[in-house]
Amino acid sequence: QETLMGKYGEDAKLIYELQDQGGELLALRYDLTVPFARYLAMNKITNMKRYHVAKVYRRDNPATTRGRYREFYQCDFDIAGQFDPMIPDAECLKIVHEILSDLQLGDFLIKVNDRRILNGVFAVCGIPESKFITTCSTVDKLDKMPWEEVRGEMIREKGLSPEAADCIGEYVQLHGGLDLIERLLQDAKLSQNKLAKEGLGDMKLLFEYLTLFGITGKISFDLSLARGLDYYTGVIFEAVLLQQENDHVEEPVSVGSVAGGGRYDGLVGMFDPKGRKVPCVGVSIGIERIFSILEQRVQASGERVRTTETQVLVATPQKHLLTARLKLISELWDAGIKAEMLYKKDPKLLKQLQYCEDMGIPLAAIVGEQELTDGVIKLRDVATREEVRM
Amino acid sequence: QETLMGKYGEDAKLIYELQDQGGELLALRYDLTVPFARYLAMNKITNMKRYHVAKVYRRDNPATTRGRYREFYQCDFDIAGQFDPMIPDAECLKIVHEILSDLQLGDFLIKVNDRRILNGVFAVCGIPESKFITTCSTVDKLDKMPWEEVRGEMIREKGLSPEAADCIGEYVQLHGGLDLIERLLQDAKLSQNKLAKEGLGDMKLLFEYLTLFGITGKISFDLSLARGLDYYTGVIFEAVLLQQENDHVEEPVSVGSVAGGGRYDGLVGMFDPKGRKVPCVGVSIGIERIFSILEQRVQASGERVRTTETQVLVATPQKHLLTARLKLISELWDAGIKAEMLYKKDPKLLKQLQYCEDMGIPLAAIVGEQELTDGVIKLRDVATREEVRM
Repeated sequence: QETLMGKYGEDAKLIYELQDQGGELLALRYDLTVPFARYLAMNKITNMKRYHVAKVYRRDNPATTRGRYREFYQCDFDIAGQFDPMIPDAECLKIVHEILSDLQLGDFLIKVNDRRILNGVFAVCGIPESKFITTCSTVDKLDKMPWEEVRGEMIREKGLSPEAADCIGEYVQLHGGLDLIERLLQDAKLSQNKLAKEGLGDMKLLFEYLTLFGITGKISFDLSLARGLDYYTGVIFEAVLLQQENDHVEEPVSVGSVAGGGRYDGLVGMFDPKGRKVPCVGVSIGIERIFSILEQRVQASGERVRTTETQVLVATPQKHLLTARLKLISELWDAGIKAEMLYKKDPKLLKQLQYCEDMGIPLAAIVGEQELTDGVIKLRDVATREEVRM
Repeated sequence: QETLMGKYGEDAKLIYELQDQGGELLALRYDLTVPFARYLAMNKITNMKRYHVAKVYRRDNPATTRGRYREFYQCDFDIAGQFDPMIPDAECLKIVHEILSDLQLGDFLIKVNDRRILNGVFAVCGIPESKFITTCSTVDKLDKMPWEEVRGEMIREKGLSPEAADCIGEYVQLHGGLDLIERLLQDAKLSQNKLAKEGLGDMKLLFEYLTLFGITGKISFDLSLARGLDYYTGVIFEAVLLQQENDHVEEPVSVGSVAGGGRYDGLVGMFDPKGRKVPCVGVSIGIERIFSILEQRVQASGERVRTTETQVLVATPQKHLLTARLKLISELWDAGIKAEMLYKKDPKLLKQLQYCEDMGIPLAAIVGEQELTDGVIKLRDVATREEVRM
């Protein structure tokens, strides 16, 4: 437990612990990745691909306006198993690309890096291994503050020498594609570092696969990407939405990270009594953030979104026809048609039609005394007011 | 909080409380009904119909073999709002009937009663109102033990007189349909009791609506049905599976309650500062129990159930064709086809076809050197081994 909590880094304080109740120390799930790793280890599963949409918890002060909650959904996809390099990793990126494209969230960029390359950079710049993690979390701030500030924090707070910080700065400000990977593979210092070389080799492979998928246009190899969590061991990535100039909304939609993930080859082994490793790579989709962006868009556009899928409202124009409505709605339900009726004995027809308009129900099936006698119903198109007897 | 916990009755001890963390006493959700009522009150919603499938928690010793867990899913459907009598109630029963029929769980029976009728019976039999709830929970045991034992418990443990117990016994052993309702409406004592009369009137209405739905064949007005939870105020119901004589399974499938619910008109008011009431009726589907029954059935039948929906495996018959597989799978994914491939650089064809058989994947799309040259693929039907070039 001790070491596991450590894997969450500074975030460990946000874990909702439960006091001992019945002989066990319990805590509310912080994310879906660690429970997935635990599940694999406990059930001795060495090979699995799955998605999971579920709630996670933070012992935090909620800031609901900024989309920070104590209870919220995460949406994860992971591939576990011993496979050939970068094939599942490329699939994860393909999935992120597909989701963000299909949701039409606007322009986005998926930044990719590799922990081994970062560690190689740190080693090459003379950082002692004991300071890798803390340096990593400072690099992680480059998406929120300029390099000069990050440099200052490295020197003042983390105790790096100005030369070491500048050396890191030279690397972490680089971003590009296959050309950059090739250049770094030729880099006099970096190419000598075993980890960095491995990471760059895999990154090259990844970009080749992503080229086959035709998605490199939105992928950037970005050496400033660090990601906070400590359990990543290889490739890491993060998708960010880009500010849109031609956005048809008045208020600018908040822009930020909407997906992230990476390779964590050591996590399953931590739960296995014999330490057997199961390599994993996965992605977490920021489903709550995406929803709040979509909601803002819809609100700004004034578009009306239906809250039900009801196809038809069963209505009556006269009193004492509740039984006719119940009989008809039952037939519609049995036929698999999404039907509703008002839960009133004798609602006014106008009220029933108004309900259709309010809820966006396109059709009304009307049974009156005449229709009952004739054994028909009147089907009304709510928008056009056109009616057919059938 | 105090009064609310009381609503769970003896089950309150199973609520997973969280110690004070940040100034609030918290607990894990025990069911979906109370949170729904709270949601309505907090958001001043007076009218809502919704379903909810989510996890709930019990501070209990798990007995997983009997399907009792500390964390499990519940599946609820509720209708909240001030409506004409028994229309939403009938819809709830229609839904239970539809779910149990569609799932083909075998023969079932939905028992229906009304808390007001039960309370009327108790009053008529001379039970003081202070003993209604405890008598109610004893009646609730009639599905597990014979009347003689329940009678004994009433007298010995609950302190009822033998005459009062026998009086209750006369009523709670009754079950039937509209005819029984009519008979009780004529009952000299019961028809004098205001609550019982109201309950019987509504029960009659309910049976009329259920007749229109054509589902009375599986509905039984059963005066022994009590249901443990304290928050019910009107109609209550419970669906039980019936033992099947012609079941094609060796081991008898466990039989028991798979759905239950009722009307709770007072719960929302408990959360409203001004005590404003929102009448509600709802049903909880025993989704975990139903799943375990379905799983037992499938296991006993030897039938194989697929764990994925993969339509086609992308395969290659020679080495060095990973790029061809990646290109093809990407095209299939983009076309919305559920495709998979092995995450190996050079898997053997036999292994790929074996994987199709193991996973029940019906088709293999094979790209070899010849196919690449000709610009085609070979589509193989895994079961028949038939192949077409396309």
